[in-house]
Formats: sequence, C-alpha cells, structure tokens
Amino acid sequence: MNEHISASAAIGVVGATGYTGLEVLRVLRNHPRVRVAFATSEGQAGEASGLPGLALVDSAGAPLDEVALVFLCLPHGQAVAWAERALAAGVRVVDLTADHRPGSGRDAGAVYGMADLAADRVPGARLVANPGCYATGVQLALDPLRRAGMIEAAAPVVVSAASGVTGAGRTPRRELLFAEVAGDFRPYATGNGHRHLLEMRASLRGLQLVFQPHLLPIARGILETIYVPVKAGIDAAAVRAVWRDAYRDAATVRVTDATPTLAQVVGTDLLLLGAADNAGIEVPLVTVMASLDNLGKGAAGQAVHNMNLMLGFEPAAGLRC
Amino acid sequence: MNEHISASAAIGVVGATGYTGLEVLRVLRNHPRVRVAFATSEGQAGEASGLPGLALVDSAGAPLDEVALVFLCLPHGQAVAWAERALAAGVRVVDLTADHRPGSGRDAGAVYGMADLAADRVPGARLVANPGCYATGVQLALDPLRRAGMIEAAAPVVVSAASGVTGAGRTPRRELLFAEVAGDFRPYATGNGHRHLLEMRASLRGLQLVFQPHLLPIARGILETIYVPVKAGIDAAAVRAVWRDAYRDAATVRVTDATPTLAQVVGTDLLLLGAADNAGIEVPLVTVMASLDNLGKGAAGQAVHNMNLMLGFEPAAGLRC
Amino acid sequence: MNEHISASAAIGVVGATGYTGLEVLRVLRNHPRVRVAFATSEGQAGEASGLPGLALVDSAGAPLDEVALVFLCLPHGQAVAWAERALAAGVRVVDLTADHRPGSGRDAGAVYGMADLAADRVPGARLVANPGCYATGVQLALDPLRRAGMIEAAAPVVVSAASGVTGAGRTPRRELLFAEVAGDFRPYATGNGHRHLLEMRASLRGLQLVFQPHLLPIARGILETIYVPVKAGIDAAAVRAVWRDAYRDAATVRVTDATPTLAQVVGTDLLLLGAADNAGIEVPLVTVMASLDNLGKGAAGQAVHNMNLMLGFEPAAGLRC
Amino acid sequence: MNEHISASAAIGVVGATGYTGLEVLRVLRNHPRVRVAFATSEGQAGEASGLPGLALVDSAGAPLDEVALVFLCLPHGQAVAWAERALAAGVRVVDLTADHRPGSGRDAGAVYGMADLAADRVPGARLVANPGCYATGVQLALDPLRRAGMIEAAAPVVVSAASGVTGAGRTPRRELLFAEVAGDFRPYATGNGHRHLLEMRASLRGLQLVFQPHLLPIARGILETIYVPVKAGIDAAAVRAVWRDAYRDAATVRVTDATPTLAQVVGTDLLLLGAADNAGIEVPLVTVMASLDNLGKGAAGQAVHNMNLMLGFEPAAGLRC
Repeated sequence: MNEHISASAAIGVVGATGYTGLEVLRVLRNHPRVRVAFATSEGQAGEASGLPGLALVDSAGAPLDEVALVFLCLPHGQAVAWAERALAAGVRVVDLTADHRPGSGRDAGAVYGMADLAADRVPGARLVANPGCYATGVQLALDPLRRAGMIEAAAPVVVSAASGVTGAGRTPRRELLFAEVAGDFRPYATGNGHRHLLEMRASLRGLQLVFQPHLLPIARGILETIYVPVKAGIDAAAVRAVWRDAYRDAATVRVTDATPTLAQVVGTDLLLLGAADNAGIEVPLVTVMASLDNLGKGAAGQAVHNMNLMLGFEPAAGLRC
Repeated sequence: MNEHISASAAIGVVGATGYTGLEVLRVLRNHPRVRVAFATSEGQAGEASGLPGLALVDSAGAPLDEVALVFLCLPHGQAVAWAERALAAGVRVVDLTADHRPGSGRDAGAVYGMADLAADRVPGARLVANPGCYATGVQLALDPLRRAGMIEAAAPVVVSAASGVTGAGRTPRRELLFAEVAGDFRPYATGNGHRHLLEMRASLRGLQLVFQPHLLPIARGILETIYVPVKAGIDAAAVRAVWRDAYRDAATVRVTDATPTLAQVVGTDLLLLGAADNAGIEVPLVTVMASLDNLGKGAAGQAVHNMNLMLGFEPAAGLRC
Repeated sequence: MNEHISASAAIGVVGATGYTGLEVLRVLRNHPRVRVAFATSEGQAGEASGLPGLALVDSAGAPLDEVALVFLCLPHGQAVAWAERALAAGVRVVDLTADHRPGSGRDAGAVYGMADLAADRVPGARLVANPGCYATGVQLALDPLRRAGMIEAAAPVVVSAASGVTGAGRTPRRELLFAEVAGDFRPYATGNGHRHLLEMRASLRGLQLVFQPHLLPIARGILETIYVPVKAGIDAAAVRAVWRDAYRDAATVRVTDATPTLAQVVGTDLLLLGAADNAGIEVPLVTVMASLDNLGKGAAGQAVHNMNLMLGFEPAAGLRC
Repeated sequence: MNEHISASAAIGVVGATGYTGLEVLRVLRNHPRVRVAFATSEGQAGEASGLPGLALVDSAGAPLDEVALVFLCLPHGQAVAWAERALAAGVRVVDLTADHRPGSGRDAGAVYGMADLAADRVPGARLVANPGCYATGVQLALDPLRRAGMIEAAAPVVVSAASGVTGAGRTPRRELLFAEVAGDFRPYATGNGHRHLLEMRASLRGLQLVFQPHLLPIARGILETIYVPVKAGIDAAAVRAVWRDAYRDAATVRVTDATPTLAQVVGTDLLLLGAADNAGIEVPLVTVMASLDNLGKGAAGQAVHNMNLMLGFEPAAGLRC
C-alpha cells in the first residue's frame, strides 16, 4: 500500500519525560528517516526535551497536523483519549501503554504489535498496541514452541521473571526509592494476577501460565527464566532449532547456545533467547531464558520497530541491534 | 551428656579472611559464651583479625589444644585434612565447606547440621557438616511439606533461586568484579547440576527437584522462589500452617503472611518463609518463597547454631534474630 | 545531679517510620537500659513498629507521661511544637531535626549535642539539638586542630563530602528514585549554602569553610575529604597525635594511620579519622578524611549517646562500636 | 598533508578484551569511515571480538600490513614494544596506556593527544599518547583559566575526584570484587602521588595541584570537583565565558549553567563543565566541576578523536556527542 511507504516522516512523542518516552526520543535521535516534530509534557512544558533544539510542549500545544504518527508514552489509563484525538486527525498511533492491549477491554480496533509475530498486520494498522515488556519476552520465547507442538499442555509453564525498576515507571513512590531498592530483591504481584498475563494468555492459548515477577536492584533489563514442560523427545537443542527457524529474518531476536544475561542486552533493542536441559528428573523440562531491555525491545525498541513497519521503513531502522 | 554442657568455651576459626570466616567472627564477637582463641590465615598471618586484640595466625601456629571446637571456613576441598587434625586432637568440628556434606563421598562420620531439623543428632556430634546456603532454604521450606504428604511427586518442583555474590567466595575472578556484576543478572549452573542439589536430594527423597540459581548484583542474600505442585485441596494457607507447626520452637525461622524479601533478612540469621496460591491454572501450584542471608542463616548463623547445640548453649545464643 | 542517674528508663520515639526514626529503634532494641514505651507515626498508626510487640501510635495517642525522654525524628521544621509539648510535660528531648541547632534561630534553650565535645553540658540538658550528619564529621575532625592552632586562618578549608541517599530522607521524590540515583554521582547545594554550614561555622569560628556535598549511589554512609591549610611544621602525624589526645576517652571516635573508607563504618556508630600529607606543593596542606554512617554516628548513634549522657548511663551503652 | 586525508581506513585494536579495548571497538563499530581489520588478545585468541564476523587473534597473528593505524589498549607498561613494532611497519599509533605520556620518561617522540588543545600537533603525529582519564577533565577544565590568568598561583588548586571502577582495569583483584566495592566509597592514592599528576603538571605549569581520587561503586564515569583559587574579580560566570570561548568549536566539550553529574555523560564521549561561586568566605574560590565517562572522553572517545585528526576525518566522526 502506497501510504505505508515513505522516505522520511515527522512524528510526535506524547509523554516525553517518563522512562519510555525518554527512551523513544533516544532511539529516534539516531533514526535515519524520522524527524521528531514535538514532544509533550504537561508538567515540564517549555523545558528541554533532550533532543537538540526541541523544547517540550503541553498537549494542547502539540502540532498534530504536522506529523504522520504519534507514540503514546503516558501512564496506563491515559492513552485512550489521546489515541482518539490522533486518529480523528488522521494521525497513526503506537500506544506504549496497556490501554489497547488484549485484555484491556478496549482492544477492538487496535493491532497487537508483537512486531516479530505480526509483520502482516502491523503495516496497515492505524492504531498499534505496543506489547508489555514481560509479555514480549514470554511470547517470543514460547510462541514458536507452542506452534510446533512442543509444550505439554497438562502441566504449568512457570515464568520466573525479574525486572529492573524502570519497569515500574518514574512516578515517585517510597518503595522505589534508591535506599529501599538497593540490596533488595522482591517478588511482587504474587498470586498469578499480573496485568501482563492477560496479554500472554491471549496469545498463548492452551498453555497454563504461571507468571511470577521480581524486582531487581537494577535500573533496566528483564530476565525471564521459563520452566517449560516439553513433550517426550524434545530438548534444548530442538527448542533452539525452532527459534532459529522462526526468527531467521528477525534482526532483533538472537538465539544463543550459551546462557543469556542482562548485561548482554541492556541498552539494546535485542531479545536474547537460550535454553538448557535439566538432568536428574523423570519428566522432560527445558529451561528457557529470555533477556531484553525493558525500555528497549520491551518498549521503545519494539515501538519504533512497529513504526518502521507502519511507515514502510526497514524493519530495524534506527534500532540498536 | 555432660561434655555437651558448658558455661563458656574457647573456639578457633580456620580460614578467617574469606566471607564466611569473617561472618563467623562477626557473630562470635557478640556471643555471650564464646571466646575466640585463634583465627587463621595462611596469607595474612600477623595482620588484625577484626576482633580486638586478636591477630591472625597461620595453620601451623594455631593452638588447637586451647579450644573445644573449630569452625572450618576454608575453600571447598581443603577441609578434610584440617578436620582429621582437629578430631585427632579431641577438638570438635563445624565444617562450613561442602567437603563432608551428603554427596561429597566423605560424609560417613559427619552429622549433616540442618540445625532446625536435626536437633537430636547435632548435640552429640564430633563433626558437623554445615549445610549449603541454597540447600538450607530449600530444605527448610520443603521438608515439612514433604513429610505432610502435600507435594505431588509426579511433577517437578522448580526452585528458581537468586543469590548475592558473596556466595561465590572472595577469590578474585573476572566475572565477580564490580563492573561485571553491577547492572547484570545471570542464570548459572544451568542443566540442574549445581553442587547443592546433592544435599537437597539426599534430604528430600522422592521429589523431582529442578534447581536454577541466578547471580544478583547484591553483596549478600538469597531469595528462593519455589513452584510446588501440591495435592488437591492444598493451598498456601495449609502450607503456612504446616510450617508454623514445624517451626514453633525455631528461633531463626519465621513464617509470614506477606511476601518475603531480601532486605528483611540481610544481616540477620533468620530464614523467612512465605507462600502464595496461583489463580487461573488447572493444576494446583503453590509458590513458596524463602529468603535468608547466605552468610547468616546460610553459613555463619547456622554454624553457630550448630555450635550452640554441640556445646549445650541456648540454641539461638549470639544469633541475630 | 541525682536526676541524671538511673538504672533504666522508658523512652518514646516520635516519627518512627523515617530513616532516622527506624535507626533509633534499631539501636534502642539492643540497649541494655532502655525500654521503648511508644513509637509514633501519623500515617501508619496501628502498624508494626519493628520492635516486637510494639505497634505504632499517632501523636495524640503517645503516652508522654510514661517516659523520661523522647527522640524527635520528624522532618525538619516539625520538631518545635513537639519539643514544647514534651518539655511542658517534664519529658526531656533529643531533637534529631535541624530545628534547634545553631543557626536555626530557635537554639536559645537547647544544648548543641556534639557529644564528644560537650560532655559537660549535655548531662544536665532538658533539650538537646542533635547535630547534623555532615556537621558531626567536620567538627570532630577540625575542632581539635583549630584549638591546637594548627589551621591557617587566611586560607579556605575545603570540605568535599559525599553521602548516601538516606541522608535526604524517606519522602518520595523523583531525584531519589533508584533508577535516577544508580550509576550517578552528583554535586548538590553548590554555592556554599548548605544548611549544615550554619552549625559548622558556629562551632568552628575563625575558619573559612567551603562545604560541597555530593550524592552517592549508596544507601548510607558519609565520607568527608577535607583539605586543611596548616601552619608551617604541621603534618599528618601531628594531626593524628592531636586527635588521639582529644579522643582518648571517646569510644565512638577512632583514628587510623590508614585511609578511612565507608565500608568500615556503615552499620556502626563510629567516626573514623585519617590524615595524609601532600607532596609536591609549596604550601602545607593536610588531607583529612572522616567517615561515618549518616544514620549511625551522624544521627541515631549520637542521639543515643546524648541520651546516655542525659540519663547517666555509660556513654557508649547500646552503641555499635 | 595528503597522507592525513582519506575516505576510509582499516585499523587494528591491540588488547581488545580489557575495558578500554572493548570501548574502542564499541565506538568504532558505528564509525562511518573505519573498518576494524583485527583485534588482538593473547588469552582469548579465536573467540568472538564483539564485532560481527571478527574473531580475536593473538599479537603474532595480527596483520599489521593491512592497517593504517593501531590503538594500543594494553596494560600500562606493555605498549612500548608494540608501538615500536607498529611504527617500524609504517603504521601510526594511538597509545591509550600511560607509557608515552609526559612523565613516563618515554615521551620523546610522542605527541600528547589532548585533542581539544592539540589540534595542530596531532594530525601529523605518528605516535599519539592518549591522555589519562582524570587528566583529561582536569586539563580541559583548567587550561583555559590558566591561560587567561584567572588562577591565583600562590594557593593550591584542589582536585577532589571520583571514578567508577572500570578506571582500575579488568584484571581480577580482591579490592575490585563486587562485594568489596558495593556500598563503599574510598579515597586512594593519598599523598598527592597519583600517576596522572605527572601529565597534569606537565600541561598546567605554575599551578599547585593537589589531586585526591576516590573509588565510586559505579562501573563507569568520573566527576572531578575542583576548588580553584581565583584572582580578585573572577567569578563562575567569567569562568564559563572563558570556557565557551575556548571550546566554541569543540564538539565533545559542553559548558552548562547547571551542575554537571555523571549520569549526563556516561555512555557518551562528552566532557561536561560547570562552575559555582562560593559564598561566605574571604578569598575568592570558584568550584569547578567536570564530568566525563572514563571509558568515553577519558579513553576511547578521545582516542578515536585523535585518530580522526590523524586520518583527516571529521573531528567528531563516530563519537557519541
């Protein structure tokens, strides 16, 4: 479609002072095809945006008619009105909040932008719901295995995950103060009720997901250790082979024979996948490990990936991979 | 037995410059019944031990005849000769290395000192093998549940654990440098082959254990998140009730209705246990969480606890609980 | 005076959920002569205080008639009314806020409790203004040198200081979030206008103080590197000799021939002092280094020290030194 | 000179597994004019270099004839022989070690590559001694002030500096282990004898420098707080004006009216300069603050800057600024 192909584009960033908004600006700064026409902040309008020569404006002052697409980097719950305003003005939307994701109750018109799995639907979308950070790692790790029929459906798939604190946002709260987080490691959202489960379940039908996140004393990065009950005869090598096939054209997904760590991906837009067999047990269980930067592949990186698909640029243009 | 009851005792610390040796000295400094007669170091003999007025001596210079008991805080593999020497001199031994633990091949004469589960065997022991840090949390969490018949034996019990770096010792290695560890989070010992599994399996017969440790960018502390397949009708409340009964007299084990975290236990000799149910799955799975300081309850705290039992002191004398 | 000598005492802690209040409770928990009768919190009344069996109460519910002394651990600016209420009820006060310190404009009736320098005035005081954390290190380092006439008055004395974030309090602010502080190091209060300068100048008359603090990515601890212009013939050895004489009876002040670091004092109520000469310059300048825990010697430790003096206990009773 | 102008070039990195070598590779990866022809490691030859498709080779296997220039990223003391070998082969050298810097005793033939101050000498150099990280901040901050006659020569200029641990190299040492560094802050090299002083003094003749470094619990970044005795009438505004004039064409030096912090420069090749006046003292003293990434502007960034000047590229080509 013609409308999806362009040499360059002007875009807007709505909510440019939170961690995801700042990261979107950081990625776009080095994007070869994009010019940031505005970046908004209600509380800091008039201050510097971080991009040379671009001051923050408030929502009312955002020149929506100058841009082809906006990124919504608002707190969860505040994106719906902005998306409506943008779409009404003919501006396409990548929404980084949870407001239009599966399970939100408002996902009717949105395309769920798990970019590496939805390359056919994203290009034509007007509104893309950018996936959650935890959900990105879990789905990209498990979806190819599920499709290949490798996972034993009768047993739970346990996702023991850990995230740096930027995943919790930039609004001041006592439990996120440096002196509370440093030297601590905490499970949270116990009981299998985390918001991202809705997304994961919508995409990974038939799996019994148990999702337990933990808070790391780290600014950024997610590592998910997933204990996957597999069918007889399936091992880590088979898992890696399926991934390599599924992601052979995916610039931002890497499969390693070694063990993924956070340090390898922080500051990048990569997802790193690894797998290991487990000795000494009677049922086959493969340990799957996925690491990504929650602000990179888990937010801004995938958002820009989606924008690239929507605007007809190279899929990995501007990405750190 | 008379020999086990004393008003006070002199003891020795063998290997007093590693993290466990330093921590044993720290605990003993405030112990009401103990005087440290010597502390050894091969490389730093003559330097200060950290205890007022006590200089380090080398092994040859250790006055074994002055003490009732020694703590062996050596690197793994170096404790056997020292234990033989001490026992031959009539000195009792608490060995903090892995050298006499179940699975070491040399555990014949040693009592495995999981203090809260072995209060009948430790008092009369000449040689106690102090449990590993990871194994302490796993066994104290699971043993009462296993005995109560709550765990489904056909399914794997997944232990997803994370430890601070002092668990890896104080010998310089590149992967333990500050700049390598800060901001990283790494799975290690993948494949279900960690040394502590031998201990865990010896004590938790009949369970299919999967143990996956991770390295935290934290100096000290262990949090173990254990995904326990339970029999029908068992839930987190039942788990907590069994623990409370099992540990009603245990000064260093606490059961919480909330979520255990590292910060609550670092610097103490406590083990903190919590449990949560998981919604939305077909098979019952209780998430069990255990937090402890790897140098406290996971090493020096339990070692002093064992010493207290051996010498007839109050079980929790000198402990930080 | 008879009233200052007691075998034991009941005390109250006002503002027990901030970092200094929590630390006062931690120190008092192990104090041999003190029982904590109440601990207040306006927002968390009814919750656990951290001390076994003691729930938090709000200010109105504090049984002031049961106690001999209260610690005021409130935000700066809120201590005046509480001090008046306590004094009117015949209860003595140790105020950990800045509200009654020199330079506050309200210090008339208060004794400035730099415990190691004011052992004659504190015992009889009804109201003690506990010194600021930065001021404690600077004054204890410089006061003996100033009195000994060692410091060159015509040149500035530069205090380049660094503190962990608990010094900034527990009220949530964006710049104190983990992700903002981790990996950063920031000068603040530039321009020589920090609040603690008022205290320092009041006690160190005749010196030209320049005080520049920095924020460390650390929970607790202060290190002050002080560049002291000294008179001809004065060197680091002379500085240490003066300190050793001045603090020969001070249990919480240590002088080292080596270099003070934070790790040596965090979690203690100690102040560690060191000094070094500087080669290759024409004017004599001694580098003085002082390290202390801002919550220990810099707050709760000194507050309890003052209480000990006021109530006739051993000066270092309950302190971690 | 014709030889200095080229469209692109092949280069080699000698010592590519230490922190500076890794950072040189990171910068070069995004350099528009450079191809890395080889990267050496004695201990890890055959392993991946971090650059796609480039395996590490040992020194003997380095194809020196293919490259125009080599970066020497070796431990201090090991660069002399390599520099001789390269120069003999007609290959130009940027030496990141201290081996050819002023004060090394071997600086005869080398140009000291403080790129922003030596743009006339570097282009024609065969061998450039890349400045030390601390020295870079100090010299770029003070040199323009010294030349402008702003600094009072009779008084000491105190540099109170703090650096992340990558500045100490990647060779394992106990004092650099995570558990030793985390939560600590330490002065080191007391006595005004740090190696970098030789460089600083060679360039800043006439100043009485006192240099006191501290170790931060941070991977990377340097902040230098410099207490500058200035002549009557000189203030922070005048200091900033002189800098802005001196660095008006310098892409990697920024002057701020606010306070420089580490977080603003980590991961970049920038130097950030700020200044503040000090109230309440009798002699004028301006506090100067310089922040830079020790691996960026303090090592790899400046090295690539020098290479750009030597090979006739844009001065800031490939730099993160």
